[in-house]
Amino acid sequence: MASHLTVNRDRLWHTLMEMGQVGALPNGGCSRPALSEDDRKGRNLFIRWCREAGCEVSFDAAGNIYARRTGRNSSRPAVATGSHLDTQPHGGKFDGIYGVLAGLEVVRALNDARIETDAALDVICWTNEEGVRFGPPLAGSQSFAGKLDVTTLHQCPTTDGTTVGEDLRRTGFLGTERPGSRALDCFIEAHIEQGPILEAQAKTIGVVTHIIGIRWFLVTLTGVDSHAGTTPMDRRRDALVGAAEMITTLNQMARDEDSFARLTVGKIEVSPNSGATIPGKATFVCDLRHPDTGVLDTLESRMHASMRYIAARRGLAIEITRSINIPPLGFAPDLITLIRNTAAQLGYSNIDMLSGAGHDAMNVAQVVPTAMLFVPCKDGLSHNEAESATPEDLAAGAHTLLHVLLARSG
Amino acid sequence: MASHLTVNRDRLWHTLMEMGQVGALPNGGCSRPALSEDDRKGRNLFIRWCREAGCEVSFDAAGNIYARRTGRNSSRPAVATGSHLDTQPHGGKFDGIYGVLAGLEVVRALNDARIETDAALDVICWTNEEGVRFGPPLAGSQSFAGKLDVTTLHQCPTTDGTTVGEDLRRTGFLGTERPGSRALDCFIEAHIEQGPILEAQAKTIGVVTHIIGIRWFLVTLTGVDSHAGTTPMDRRRDALVGAAEMITTLNQMARDEDSFARLTVGKIEVSPNSGATIPGKATFVCDLRHPDTGVLDTLESRMHASMRYIAARRGLAIEITRSINIPPLGFAPDLITLIRNTAAQLGYSNIDMLSGAGHDAMNVAQVVPTAMLFVPCKDGLSHNEAESATPEDLAAGAHTLLHVLLARSG
Repeated sequence: MASHLTVNRDRLWHTLMEMGQVGALPNGGCSRPALSEDDRKGRNLFIRWCREAGCEVSFDAAGNIYARRTGRNSSRPAVATGSHLDTQPHGGKFDGIYGVLAGLEVVRALNDARIETDAALDVICWTNEEGVRFGPPLAGSQSFAGKLDVTTLHQCPTTDGTTVGEDLRRTGFLGTERPGSRALDCFIEAHIEQGPILEAQAKTIGVVTHIIGIRWFLVTLTGVDSHAGTTPMDRRRDALVGAAEMITTLNQMARDEDSFARLTVGKIEVSPNSGATIPGKATFVCDLRHPDTGVLDTLESRMHASMRYIAARRGLAIEITRSINIPPLGFAPDLITLIRNTAAQLGYSNIDMLSGAGHDAMNVAQVVPTAMLFVPCKDGLSHNEAESATPEDLAAGAHTLLHVLLARSG
Repeated sequence: MASHLTVNRDRLWHTLMEMGQVGALPNGGCSRPALSEDDRKGRNLFIRWCREAGCEVSFDAAGNIYARRTGRNSSRPAVATGSHLDTQPHGGKFDGIYGVLAGLEVVRALNDARIETDAALDVICWTNEEGVRFGPPLAGSQSFAGKLDVTTLHQCPTTDGTTVGEDLRRTGFLGTERPGSRALDCFIEAHIEQGPILEAQAKTIGVVTHIIGIRWFLVTLTGVDSHAGTTPMDRRRDALVGAAEMITTLNQMARDEDSFARLTVGKIEVSPNSGATIPGKATFVCDLRHPDTGVLDTLESRMHASMRYIAARRGLAIEITRSINIPPLGFAPDLITLIRNTAAQLGYSNIDMLSGAGHDAMNVAQVVPTAMLFVPCKDGLSHNEAESATPEDLAAGAHTLLHVLLARSG
């Protein structure tokens, strides 16, 4: 490994800051919903930078952008990296954007060092990771993985009353290439962690081994609406007290399991939601995550038993529906090892970790050997204007990415 | 006591059923918001019945209706009974109405028996107990007690864009008598229980000794919004889990106190209320009731300590504001004794009990010796079209009321 070969920290930082001006919000964040006017501007800025760096830029029929730095051997499949440029309505400057612009920085660093690789290098910007302006989220990478038909995608309505197909034509990002038809050697996605672990453990590189499995349960409890003043405590069938006991119990269950388990009740509605009426109905969403299917099964069955016990004891009818079931995903072992060893050889402290959130890499992994690396972000904040990361950590991630891609492209 | 003197069960029942046709709803209930067209019709029906029974009908400036059966001695203050005829938007046929029409039945029964009392008997219909179409609730009895100025009441806007003053003039219920200027010997309000205790204990008459004190607390918990997938369990500041633990703990605290304590969280809002986001904010209303001020003080201080402990342990900021504080009210001891003894002498099973809800009697008690009696209602249901009571229980209450009023009027 030519470890003296590095990236330009300040150039990467200034590129991120310049992209952050597109759709800039007052508190330092960005709003670039997919295929909006600001997303169009951001993508065109990226395309201009890529062309200035000598890349060939093309689009597929899902609007995914491929910026190719050609290699010596055009018969070898390209080594790929990237992420997304679209943001949440009050998003930050790094979520997704970092993975795309770290890929651009790798191209620029290779140009600076006049290095020609054997396989080509593709920097990819996937369309609509966030799913803000139209659904589904992760649309571009889903199309690439064959999970979302292009015709279906083009018919999706946007919140502005257009369709995705119309938007792709209007913005000029509609290509003829069938998503997924391009052969890739591998896909490596760099991303901010969006969680607090690297910062808390003072590590620079997170080697992502798995994307966590996600199950959602919609829980409905039915008791009896009754008068807060006239109904004695022992004659109540209070749906909110039942929900409250379940939320506390399930939270403790996840805490007691292991450090990988996540259990969240983020959404609750009670009826009639009036101060002087004992609520006869409560509905909540329980989000359960773990990297191991067996543990998910065990936790699910313990959750159900516990909720049914609490409901019965409190005289409540209960209905539990599983509305989402995304299995855990393990990344390619050789790529995981490569990222871990590369980070270590470059002198960056690192740990193996999970991704608790979904990413484009999750879809690409269905059809191409894939892995991810994380860099720390301040206070674990993401999907938030205050999202922040240091120039040093961002450069360390890009530096690691550079050598990983070089190792694969020869 | 002339215990052979009784009320006419069927006449009382048919009168209630006829009133139930005014503003009738499809599922057996009524909608007669105060001073609405249907409330006007219901009041005029009552006035016609009273005049047919030989009463003089008058109004005060708050629109309260006084139907007077004159006595031998016009210098003695009248013995009074009554309640309200207005209903909730999906109210029943008994809440309030029973107290007014039981008073009418007492007048009719005295007429049947050709009994002249020494003091006059007033059957009162208080204006706007429910507070549905305009605020404040219990407006008529508040005015009578000097707690609500008539000019202020007349300026209150209604949900139909009128004012209360305009409505009183239009409906013809605006009298010149100053509310509260009428001398009364006592006020006895008969009412359905609106709770399940009499039915559960198979008792016919509830002798109401107190109206429970009510305190409301607005509790706001502030943690940090964060990602359900990327935030480990031990690094969360989850406002909903904090609220859930508090709701469960406070519920148990009230259960452990005594059979009079009531504690309800009926209203909760969490933010951002999104399935995949740990809620950074939760706000809930805690309704605490007890007939004893000392116990309310103790419970309040234990609640606060417990909530502050839970908040601190879970890394949440907490703010607790007391938004309502209605002290407990004890009814006139001699009237309580009179009701208890009368019910017993008439052979009706009875128990002393609390009112967990507010009633017009609570205001009248500020200026006139006052008490209440309850009759059972089915399943404790009220403020509900399914509100129900039996002709026998309703007649037993009116029978008791008749002899209580006779004992006071001589």
